[in-house]
Amino acid sequence: MAVSELELIRRCFERRPLRPDVALGVGDDAALLRPGEGLLAAAADALTEGVHFPPGTAPEAVGHKALAVNLSDLAAMGAEPAWALLALGLPGPELAWTEGFARGFLALARSWSVELVGGDTTRSPVRTAAVTVLGRVPDGQVLRRDGARPGDLVCVTGTLGDAALALRLLREGTALHPWLRARLERPVPRLAEGRALRGLAGACIDLSDGLVADLGRVLEASAGAAGTPLAARIELRRLPASSAFREAAAALEGSRCWALQAAGGDDYELCFTLPAGRLTEARRRLEPLGTPVTALGTVEATQAEEAGVHLLDPEGHPWRPPAPGYDAFSGPGGEEGPEPKGP
Amino acid sequence: MAVSELELIRRCFERRPLRPDVALGVGDDAALLRPGEGLLAAAADALTEGVHFPPGTAPEAVGHKALAVNLSDLAAMGAEPAWALLALGLPGPELAWTEGFARGFLALARSWSVELVGGDTTRSPVRTAAVTVLGRVPDGQVLRRDGARPGDLVCVTGTLGDAALALRLLREGTALHPWLRARLERPVPRLAEGRALRGLAGACIDLSDGLVADLGRVLEASAGAAGTPLAARIELRRLPASSAFREAAAALEGSRCWALQAAGGDDYELCFTLPAGRLTEARRRLEPLGTPVTALGTVEATQAEEAGVHLLDPEGHPWRPPAPGYDAFSGPGGEEGPEPKGP
Repeated sequence: MAVSELELIRRCFERRPLRPDVALGVGDDAALLRPGEGLLAAAADALTEGVHFPPGTAPEAVGHKALAVNLSDLAAMGAEPAWALLALGLPGPELAWTEGFARGFLALARSWSVELVGGDTTRSPVRTAAVTVLGRVPDGQVLRRDGARPGDLVCVTGTLGDAALALRLLREGTALHPWLRARLERPVPRLAEGRALRGLAGACIDLSDGLVADLGRVLEASAGAAGTPLAARIELRRLPASSAFREAAAALEGSRCWALQAAGGDDYELCFTLPAGRLTEARRRLEPLGTPVTALGTVEATQAEEAGVHLLDPEGHPWRPPAPGYDAFSGPGGEEGPEPKGP
Repeated sequence: MAVSELELIRRCFERRPLRPDVALGVGDDAALLRPGEGLLAAAADALTEGVHFPPGTAPEAVGHKALAVNLSDLAAMGAEPAWALLALGLPGPELAWTEGFARGFLALARSWSVELVGGDTTRSPVRTAAVTVLGRVPDGQVLRRDGARPGDLVCVTGTLGDAALALRLLREGTALHPWLRARLERPVPRLAEGRALRGLAGACIDLSDGLVADLGRVLEASAGAAGTPLAARIELRRLPASSAFREAAAALEGSRCWALQAAGGDDYELCFTLPAGRLTEARRRLEPLGTPVTALGTVEATQAEEAGVHLLDPEGHPWRPPAPGYDAFSGPGGEEGPEPKGP
């Protein structure tokens, strides 16, 4: 069915107002928002078909993930999300696909009280969804990347490697545990966890490009304030794996599992640092949310040539993944796959 | 030259901080902004190669226009821009193209004290730039679409049809006056004009899809508050044309010129309404900015079936353009051409 741009927007995206801090939502040249107190956190990430999700992915999953990867960036700052803008590119006025996309996007938005306040719908040879999210965080309580210090523990929420394994199995045509598929297609942004870590974590980042790449960014960003190059020693045996991962990966060599877990990307867990004495407090705050916290290793002062992430196998020997993590242009880390998103 | 995503961002986009209200710019999971008093205005528009600009367009022009079409949306609200986020999709790590894009984008940003605070660089089969702009506007001084009332004059800034004519000439391979090319490729957002119209214009919109389509949106949005369906009678002979337009369009039939001016789109002038007695004040405010103001006709209460924009030829007869304006999917208004942007 051929519909106009305006009709497509009306049918798929117009909803009743959700937030009292939206003075003017969709339908004018710009949205008008009441920012209130504190800092405004803003992040933008785009998904493109064939790059970040395979053609044939359910449109609900694409809509969910397009918002989720952005909310994950706010989670990593300890911010509370409020508003989103969406620039959607479509090959044509695809009503059914767009309705599915909107269902996935708006259901996740509603669950976090996020209101879609504006954007743009245009023609594009490939489906693409560029999202901007805005949220609030109290000044002085922000989780940044540059707060890692020598002696800190490196921790992660949840489990690693599920999304990368799911992608590998999908590509092989292997039957997939629904939970693994959900980890790839419907990541849950760790917003409650990010807020719970305010005032506790020294540094925080969300794992989109893989642990090695993203933790490497934390170490690099923190070196200046720490006054020394920083290394992290991560014990591979500590990488948290879900039972679905362990079961599905049973046929893989151990080193393939490490690659998926340490460099596979697309996990959207939070990686954070904190003084060793605060680990119990972190668990006390996050476990009521149903989110396990795992300590993977430590941050150390080092020489420039030793800076970065060092992975250690169960015998204590250094181990390197085939590629350290995802780069938009030079390719994937760990496994072949679509480009993970963010930060 | 092959560069990584990070290297591309560093070389092309990292600049010294520009604004004191940016607490944290590019380089973390999200930017942190100090919103301050008043309302926050937010708009998002994307440009895609082959849809919104022809392949081969100078990258500086694409960078300029990607930001300009967004700033134009803030102009139409009377807002003052502050920050931008950019999701850039590229087929590969194209250093030279991206440097050009960044030059055009950042030069326009600097000229309006807009700071690029975040975004995303990813692989995409076609070049695409999705931009979100954020700005401020005092509560109660916003220019909205829904403020047109019976008896108001309909006015526009500047001249109409230049961009649509430039596009037509480019497609024909006809030599192009540099000023006409600039009107297509480097539109100037009417930010100063929008701010000057605060408290004066009843309704305001930027002309991206063409006068007929965009003024039609103003009439539709205003009908509810006006308590009556609204029509606008626009005299075609009043449509303001630049001397470059008149010269280059001399060979065209009059009705072709009207189509370019009334439905061609991509003008990024402001169309606004105000009580007839305030026209002199509008000119007094805008002409010092070097911007002419032209009254095109009037808003009238009407019956539902007569609502919308009515164009009148010099004999007072109704005239319709071949298509009323651009729709992202059903096609162009006035002339064949790339899709104009926004709102």
